[in-house]
Amino acid sequence: MEDRINDLISEEIHEECGVFGVYNMVGEDVADSIYYGLFALQHRGQESCGIAVSDTLGPKGRVSSMKGMGLVNEVFTPEGLETLRGDIGVGHVRYSTAGASNIANTQPLVLNYVKGTLALAHNGNIINAPELRRELEYTGAIFQTTIDSEVIAYHIARERLKTANVEGAVRNAMMKIKGSYSLIVMSPRKLIGARDPFGFRPLCIGKKENMYILASESCALDAVNATFIRDVLPGEIVTITKEGILSDTSMCQPKMAKCIFEYIYFARPDSKIDKISVYNSRIMAGRILAQEHPVEADLVVGVPDSGNAAAMGFAMETGIPYGMAFVKNSYVGRTFIKPKQAIRESSVRIKLNVLTEAVKGKRVVMIDDSMVRGTTCARIVGMLKAAGATEVHVRISSPPFLYPCYFGTDVPSDDQLIAHNNTVEQICKIIDADSLGYLSVNRLSELIDGDLGYCDACFSGHYPIEPPTEDIRGEYEL
Amino acid sequence: MEDRINDLISEEIHEECGVFGVYNMVGEDVADSIYYGLFALQHRGQESCGIAVSDTLGPKGRVSSMKGMGLVNEVFTPEGLETLRGDIGVGHVRYSTAGASNIANTQPLVLNYVKGTLALAHNGNIINAPELRRELEYTGAIFQTTIDSEVIAYHIARERLKTANVEGAVRNAMMKIKGSYSLIVMSPRKLIGARDPFGFRPLCIGKKENMYILASESCALDAVNATFIRDVLPGEIVTITKEGILSDTSMCQPKMAKCIFEYIYFARPDSKIDKISVYNSRIMAGRILAQEHPVEADLVVGVPDSGNAAAMGFAMETGIPYGMAFVKNSYVGRTFIKPKQAIRESSVRIKLNVLTEAVKGKRVVMIDDSMVRGTTCARIVGMLKAAGATEVHVRISSPPFLYPCYFGTDVPSDDQLIAHNNTVEQICKIIDADSLGYLSVNRLSELIDGDLGYCDACFSGHYPIEPPTEDIRGEYEL
Amino acid sequence: MEDRINDLISEEIHEECGVFGVYNMVGEDVADSIYYGLFALQHRGQESCGIAVSDTLGPKGRVSSMKGMGLVNEVFTPEGLETLRGDIGVGHVRYSTAGASNIANTQPLVLNYVKGTLALAHNGNIINAPELRRELEYTGAIFQTTIDSEVIAYHIARERLKTANVEGAVRNAMMKIKGSYSLIVMSPRKLIGARDPFGFRPLCIGKKENMYILASESCALDAVNATFIRDVLPGEIVTITKEGILSDTSMCQPKMAKCIFEYIYFARPDSKIDKISVYNSRIMAGRILAQEHPVEADLVVGVPDSGNAAAMGFAMETGIPYGMAFVKNSYVGRTFIKPKQAIRESSVRIKLNVLTEAVKGKRVVMIDDSMVRGTTCARIVGMLKAAGATEVHVRISSPPFLYPCYFGTDVPSDDQLIAHNNTVEQICKIIDADSLGYLSVNRLSELIDGDLGYCDACFSGHYPIEPPTEDIRGEYEL
Amino acid sequence: MEDRINDLISEEIHEECGVFGVYNMVGEDVADSIYYGLFALQHRGQESCGIAVSDTLGPKGRVSSMKGMGLVNEVFTPEGLETLRGDIGVGHVRYSTAGASNIANTQPLVLNYVKGTLALAHNGNIINAPELRRELEYTGAIFQTTIDSEVIAYHIARERLKTANVEGAVRNAMMKIKGSYSLIVMSPRKLIGARDPFGFRPLCIGKKENMYILASESCALDAVNATFIRDVLPGEIVTITKEGILSDTSMCQPKMAKCIFEYIYFARPDSKIDKISVYNSRIMAGRILAQEHPVEADLVVGVPDSGNAAAMGFAMETGIPYGMAFVKNSYVGRTFIKPKQAIRESSVRIKLNVLTEAVKGKRVVMIDDSMVRGTTCARIVGMLKAAGATEVHVRISSPPFLYPCYFGTDVPSDDQLIAHNNTVEQICKIIDADSLGYLSVNRLSELIDGDLGYCDACFSGHYPIEPPTEDIRGEYEL
Repeated sequence: MEDRINDLISEEIHEECGVFGVYNMVGEDVADSIYYGLFALQHRGQESCGIAVSDTLGPKGRVSSMKGMGLVNEVFTPEGLETLRGDIGVGHVRYSTAGASNIANTQPLVLNYVKGTLALAHNGNIINAPELRRELEYTGAIFQTTIDSEVIAYHIARERLKTANVEGAVRNAMMKIKGSYSLIVMSPRKLIGARDPFGFRPLCIGKKENMYILASESCALDAVNATFIRDVLPGEIVTITKEGILSDTSMCQPKMAKCIFEYIYFARPDSKIDKISVYNSRIMAGRILAQEHPVEADLVVGVPDSGNAAAMGFAMETGIPYGMAFVKNSYVGRTFIKPKQAIRESSVRIKLNVLTEAVKGKRVVMIDDSMVRGTTCARIVGMLKAAGATEVHVRISSPPFLYPCYFGTDVPSDDQLIAHNNTVEQICKIIDADSLGYLSVNRLSELIDGDLGYCDACFSGHYPIEPPTEDIRGEYEL
Repeated sequence: MEDRINDLISEEIHEECGVFGVYNMVGEDVADSIYYGLFALQHRGQESCGIAVSDTLGPKGRVSSMKGMGLVNEVFTPEGLETLRGDIGVGHVRYSTAGASNIANTQPLVLNYVKGTLALAHNGNIINAPELRRELEYTGAIFQTTIDSEVIAYHIARERLKTANVEGAVRNAMMKIKGSYSLIVMSPRKLIGARDPFGFRPLCIGKKENMYILASESCALDAVNATFIRDVLPGEIVTITKEGILSDTSMCQPKMAKCIFEYIYFARPDSKIDKISVYNSRIMAGRILAQEHPVEADLVVGVPDSGNAAAMGFAMETGIPYGMAFVKNSYVGRTFIKPKQAIRESSVRIKLNVLTEAVKGKRVVMIDDSMVRGTTCARIVGMLKAAGATEVHVRISSPPFLYPCYFGTDVPSDDQLIAHNNTVEQICKIIDADSLGYLSVNRLSELIDGDLGYCDACFSGHYPIEPPTEDIRGEYEL
Repeated sequence: MEDRINDLISEEIHEECGVFGVYNMVGEDVADSIYYGLFALQHRGQESCGIAVSDTLGPKGRVSSMKGMGLVNEVFTPEGLETLRGDIGVGHVRYSTAGASNIANTQPLVLNYVKGTLALAHNGNIINAPELRRELEYTGAIFQTTIDSEVIAYHIARERLKTANVEGAVRNAMMKIKGSYSLIVMSPRKLIGARDPFGFRPLCIGKKENMYILASESCALDAVNATFIRDVLPGEIVTITKEGILSDTSMCQPKMAKCIFEYIYFARPDSKIDKISVYNSRIMAGRILAQEHPVEADLVVGVPDSGNAAAMGFAMETGIPYGMAFVKNSYVGRTFIKPKQAIRESSVRIKLNVLTEAVKGKRVVMIDDSMVRGTTCARIVGMLKAAGATEVHVRISSPPFLYPCYFGTDVPSDDQLIAHNNTVEQICKIIDADSLGYLSVNRLSELIDGDLGYCDACFSGHYPIEPPTEDIRGEYEL
Repeated sequence: MEDRINDLISEEIHEECGVFGVYNMVGEDVADSIYYGLFALQHRGQESCGIAVSDTLGPKGRVSSMKGMGLVNEVFTPEGLETLRGDIGVGHVRYSTAGASNIANTQPLVLNYVKGTLALAHNGNIINAPELRRELEYTGAIFQTTIDSEVIAYHIARERLKTANVEGAVRNAMMKIKGSYSLIVMSPRKLIGARDPFGFRPLCIGKKENMYILASESCALDAVNATFIRDVLPGEIVTITKEGILSDTSMCQPKMAKCIFEYIYFARPDSKIDKISVYNSRIMAGRILAQEHPVEADLVVGVPDSGNAAAMGFAMETGIPYGMAFVKNSYVGRTFIKPKQAIRESSVRIKLNVLTEAVKGKRVVMIDDSMVRGTTCARIVGMLKAAGATEVHVRISSPPFLYPCYFGTDVPSDDQLIAHNNTVEQICKIIDADSLGYLSVNRLSELIDGDLGYCDACFSGHYPIEPPTEDIRGEYEL
């Protein structure tokens, strides 16, 4: 799969969200740190972003927020950040999987309820949101967005009437919502992190001097020079206050279902998730690929940037030299103008060009992390051959996509998936490769040190929670 | 009082809102008409504006909306209007009296509830909103804005669970909310107009070919070449559907309290409200002023633009020639830079200059519609004298402001009102006029043909509804 | 003629420019004063504006400038003004009569030449610019704009090689350029004002504490609380330095040709030009109209805002009461969306509505300052009749436009002028008036106290300078 | 050296410009192709960009242009590109080395002169520009920008008076200007490319169907799917018309001085310049480094992205495995907010993070293409060690910078260069590396197949043209 910047113009798979929260123990502003944290999580969502902060020292815990469509460095100006005064804060980057892409749907959601103000940032997908929403409406709720996160907010607000504190309300809400979620909730004086009992999406805790930090990935801790403390456990609720971190593990359960595709593609390679290095898991994917689909060749290359680590692993395992074959143009931004039909064919060379000198006359193994529709892959194979590669052997560091994902990614419905409609041989022919090999489903656990608590439903169809009977994504839009 | 464009830099009294709705019987787009309607109502609110439309011909009655900070011609571009496809629609211009001035608080409020989508535009002020809000929160409501209109929306949504149709829900909601409101509610297939039982704020019905129109003022009907049909009655709910207009008058009551200041200042002179011409009521105000406070003079002038009609009436009654004394600069916009202290004294001449030739050597009667703090009035008197006027007699076409307004205008609290702290003689000295006369409270009814169903609480302190014990405006902001 | 804000959507006559310069004797920043001066001159040009300042206290007299498309309050932000540090400055507002409307053509023109930096602001039209431009090109000049002002700049730069100082270069340049110009030139340490020998366009001098000011109209002096000193003489060059004002009258000549239309329409009524009050000249125009075209009627009204003073004069002369008949919507801005054909007919009511109560059942005299194509006039007559006026007598406070203007206004070419193709009777029928009367050409001098040194070529065809054989306006655009 | 996106926040060396021109033989619009061409050249300049096109089929060859500050995808919108109709065109991306960074200085320069309109795009630096500019001023020239390109434009315009055609004027101008330049000149009906006789900056010719193309680098030809034809020769002038390509080589000379740093850093690795693959020259640089400064180690890594190819070469030569050690964040844009002092130390991890798993416990060879001040290099060494690298051996694939560049790059003046003030041993200590090795000056020719016609003045001080006695860069700003 091409990486995310390229995805802005192609049609590939997206993660939906990244979340980042900060609690400063000594009253200093946190908006700057959140800005850098979100910037490090930009790969998890490029459509919109937002920050909300609470000023615990000000009157009544004043909450300020700023949200907008676009990248972190487009939405936040120095003057804008300046207005976000507060020592607790939560930020969000978003790619929409549920709810349309518009300003009303940006996060964090900021709301007033019986106990004051609440801000909520959510990564995941609530599969029983439509039912819950209907229930809420039948008791008089009104909805001003089309995101499932508003359903979570309502449940927290309603449970808060019955509970002694906001973390209790979060726990009670978790008993009702089903699906994937890593959640950061900011009340005027607390910062709460929660992860669904299956642990679909990552969430970790860091510390830097007087700050506690919650982040989707550990790379965001590095960005602000914070130290990784530990992952939030699947099902755990952590509450950060002046007194420190409190943990509630009453919702934890034995069965886990961490998204394996976080390791294969979504997460940044410099992150660790649940103690496993993403980089190492990709190196391992490359090694397994080499074991499963060996080939004689002169050069191993990765499709940048996400294919590089697996290519490195393939090279290590086989001894075939690893090399660069591509130059990527990183300047593509939100308003990049798509080529018209007339020059459409050349479009992929606008984002990605081949280093002719590197591949001419060589038998090339080309590693990508996944294949959705196959069109991009076919173009890249064509470019390599046009540059003089004598053979192109495609290796995909994941199994074929066969089933839609209901837990927070936009793996599309079956009929758009090339692997759903074609055999490996047919696909190989379609993309004009000399050979094609996928990673086996049954070796996926080796990517994460043999751990079995992962979800591979998009490859296997084994959903850890009964999926909804119809595709719920985008259902709320009329 | 200076007119609204000038108010952008001065500190005078503002109306809070204007509303405009269209129902097209034959499925044509209505966004353009709403744009022109709002443009004609711009004097009622310059902070923000918005339009929401419902496409009854599309799937499920798709609702689109666009809102923003600024004037109608700043927020809506041709491309933007183009995206608003729909044959029912509602628009809003806003100056905030309750709720902070920010994007989240713009209207129309668009929300999803048990029966689909609802858009709501509100002009007025709900005085029991804080209690209602607290009640709602205690049953699990969450609030994403700080405007009282959200409280109305919640009540409509909750009542809708018990009623056969949305107009019934509006009626039930009206039983709970207290205060001033002219309301336009758009459900996917209906357009509903409602006016509070006291009739504080205006609302009228017009028709143009296949369109029914609801508007705050009749001048907005003129703007789209529609014909005035009738005013919505105080307490009436009108429901427009494919079948035509249905009226529910069950909430009507004998006692009315139409805002007299709509006639004196807020409304455009080319509007009629409840069958009375605003222009005529201002001419009458000038005539009464002349009767109450006659003076020998050479010239009668109005402070533009809102003082002109009363000046004309004063001239008619006395025979003293009416003339122009001022040139107003209309190019002041949202980002107009206020003069720094150093040149502050000259600031009023930036917006308003005196025609020296017109006033030199003359005894001038200067008519303004009201006086709040007195600073602007004092400056203008000074300018006239500097230009050579030998005498300046100030006549105010309303009684002195003595009490705050809780029904939708921002007449400030007592201690900022010059008349609250000074006698007429003292004020006359402060503004350096040769004489000063106000309209009497007891002659206000003559402005509207002797009708007694009006509210003059800001002058008399006789509130038609018990006012809240504390100033509720802006209470929700933390 | 409708006033300028309305002109943004109609197609009426425009002045091309306004200029404003400040010299501060004690080193204080002048950008704020220029901002307010330009704001007062906004009626002279709404397409673009700019400010350039020179910091005589900084190293080498650093020049900063800021220019943009749009109104003064749109182009200049507080942050922007803040960057313009300097104690001498010049500003410009522009409506393009020569040169296309784009950012490259905005003024002041800032250029480096043999003696340092020069900024130039120009109001007028150089009729021999094409020849001069060709001459310059044949000696190796390059042009980066399409405005005739660049030709002036070149001549000053070239003459500067032969003269002892910049004011000498301005004088020598004036010997070569023909046409209309009021000019402000800023060298790093001097501010120079110059007016063409015919005096087509106004230019005056003011003073405020430590500042000398040059301005197109005296109303701009009022805006910054400065005192009017005197008009720059036709043909005079004034040079302002630390030593005070130096005058060079060597280019003065007996024959003058001040634009009479400045008095009738362009200038603000609160300005005096060459000692004559614009307001008084309009009152006089109304009086003469009444003498030339008397009529029995009940009400005299002006088309706002520019027709009001003449209407007042007409009322004074006849004794018929003066009144208001219109409400104008001032919120029209740059991006106002023009009505589509479907509602085009109603468009004039968007900008201008009739006060029905004021005109119903009355015989109305309607005064406008001029008529170009007649379409707007016809619409307004129609609106008055629709509102119940029993008769509408149109009086135009200028003679019929018959000839194009080459000296700085955009009176269009003959065939678009209604008076060029129709008799007064025919026009009366076209606009559906009950009678129509124009001011006579031979009484124009009475508007300016009998002075004969004016240009009335657009009415009479008597051009004070031989006009070019072809229409040169816009010739430089390819 | 970090790559360009990172440079937006660091302080490293920049190329000044990229140029791209298209001539369509059959009258089709070329703006889209120029857009993609400039996008591929974005690495050569990120401050501003522009496109000018000439419509040879329209009346008089109408020229349209659009320019702005920012990246190609920020300045050009679909609507904007739509307005650029024309079948000949020229584009430019700019990083300012001479002339301040502001809108007036953007290119292409569009000007009118004796023979019509001319557009000019320039990559390079004219070292005798100050003298030429003074000469021009003494013959009456005015300058509206502060870029040396305006001096070239003037010379072409003046020479055009004496020559039969525009290409002759370009040749005559080339006789006067000294320095580095690759030039694209568009007259209404011709497209001309020229390269200075030393060939400092690259320029090549391509073809695609009916289009001839001129581009700074061949990677821009790939981006629009064009075929590389040949490089423009140093000193050659090529003129493209309906008749095809004409070549004038009369200015060619034996001595060449191609910038060696184009190969080492500036150019994209997928470009070929003067028949040499940039990628291959970097691989070669890595190989030579390995020969000159061998070391025992476990891993070779490049500082992304520009150090990767040399690292690959080093690995090939030594057999030490090549690997990835860094994750780069590509989302940095123009408005990225720089960290405040408080978190400054962590800033490099915002743009670049280390893959701990890849380097932990290893002896690492880290290859970068150059070192200017040494601060970035020191930070990266520190990050590697913090991640657990046991040794870090730094190898720089160019010689030490010792002298400023006057030919179009911003290698700073001596005292800011770490190598000017320190020995290699001292630098090694400063950056805390375990060893440090630079490429030798005397082996530079091996990077380009032994060709000796290159300029290495920034390393050797051997300037091919006598440098100016003072630093001229930025001299024109006051």
